[in-house]
Amino acid sequence: MKVFIVHAHPEPQSFNGALTLHAQEVLRAAGHEVRVSDLHAMKWNPVLDRHNFTTVANPDYFKPQQEEMHAAQHHGFAPDVQAEMEKLQWCDVLVFQAPLWWFSLPAILKGWVDRVFAMGFAYGGGRWFDRGVFRGKRAMLSLTTGGGDSFYAPDGINGDINDLLYPINHGIFYFCGFDALPPFLSYAPARVSDTQRAAYLAAYGERLLTLDTVKPLSYPPLAAFDETFRRRAG
Amino acid sequence: MKVFIVHAHPEPQSFNGALTLHAQEVLRAAGHEVRVSDLHAMKWNPVLDRHNFTTVANPDYFKPQQEEMHAAQHHGFAPDVQAEMEKLQWCDVLVFQAPLWWFSLPAILKGWVDRVFAMGFAYGGGRWFDRGVFRGKRAMLSLTTGGGDSFYAPDGINGDINDLLYPINHGIFYFCGFDALPPFLSYAPARVSDTQRAAYLAAYGERLLTLDTVKPLSYPPLAAFDETFRRRAG
Repeated sequence: MKVFIVHAHPEPQSFNGALTLHAQEVLRAAGHEVRVSDLHAMKWNPVLDRHNFTTVANPDYFKPQQEEMHAAQHHGFAPDVQAEMEKLQWCDVLVFQAPLWWFSLPAILKGWVDRVFAMGFAYGGGRWFDRGVFRGKRAMLSLTTGGGDSFYAPDGINGDINDLLYPINHGIFYFCGFDALPPFLSYAPARVSDTQRAAYLAAYGERLLTLDTVKPLSYPPLAAFDETFRRRAG
Repeated sequence: MKVFIVHAHPEPQSFNGALTLHAQEVLRAAGHEVRVSDLHAMKWNPVLDRHNFTTVANPDYFKPQQEEMHAAQHHGFAPDVQAEMEKLQWCDVLVFQAPLWWFSLPAILKGWVDRVFAMGFAYGGGRWFDRGVFRGKRAMLSLTTGGGDSFYAPDGINGDINDLLYPINHGIFYFCGFDALPPFLSYAPARVSDTQRAAYLAAYGERLLTLDTVKPLSYPPLAAFDETFRRRAG
């Protein structure tokens, strides 16, 4: 497998850092290839604006999707964006490694998506969901949380973790054709014992070696929806 | 009312721009006070790292919440963060004006939350949800979308808009004590008629004048959860 880890934590010694280090060791020892984009180390700029492009479709009005379509046709993405696009094309499996901040991705990682998953490159022209650009590839969230697992239970105070992650798993990964895999969650690593942290790392290592076989989350195909994009009856 | 609009769109002439301009006119004409943080115009940096602070709690290991608690006690937030915190304290109503990008906030706005909603300032010490720091204040999302309203219906292809926005309304606004108001949605402004766009603006103006009376979204109080933060039986 070719695994692309997009890593987003400001502290290299953090548990997120340990997870990404362990992932590289485990995957390489098993003969897989790994590339890592360490967004803080790269000083990644998460803001989508005209700096995303070397081309200009409309100098008078900046419409991101219009500029993206134009750039996709004219090799007009900025070099930092282009480099990430090439890693996406290279990989079999995409992994986001990050802390859950405000029940979503840290801004530096959200902005990696905003900029890299451009129209004309990652979707567009009827290519979405099960007809998506990246179909055949898989994607997984590996997230750490502040609260414990009970906070994220179906009846937990923060809401069901699967519902909280739906906008990412369905709306980013599956939208672009990835098979979204069940997330790997390390709950409250700052608050648990060394033994539990070691158990998280071991479990993550085992999960990584099954990235190509684990059953994806189940989402409906495009054919399940009518011409207004609502569910067909029956 | 004192209304604080956090505005996040890279094109001033966009429909998001029109909504924020209209909001200022309508609210001021009715005698309300308005402040706007135009994040792209301000060149807001959305990345939470050591630049968020003028103080250092732990030079050897960067743990955001630890640095936030320390900064809150020692006037240690960077000037750009401090300025936003003061606007939050000033306002009665907080409005986020943005396009829905990847079923969530644009990174520049997500990173405004990551940096400004700091522990020790916006939450912490048992102050969350209905005991939150900002209780008594209200907050509302005003969002534009690419897809039409049917895409976001309960049986729509993108998922129910209320479920998609739960991590923001519940997890950011209500988490910090705001009464989260029903979102104002302008569906597909780039694809609808001039008449429909004018109707959106008119409806937004009407909504803004009821910000202090509209019924908030209903979320359970802390007392509904047990000591593991799961719903109490019965």
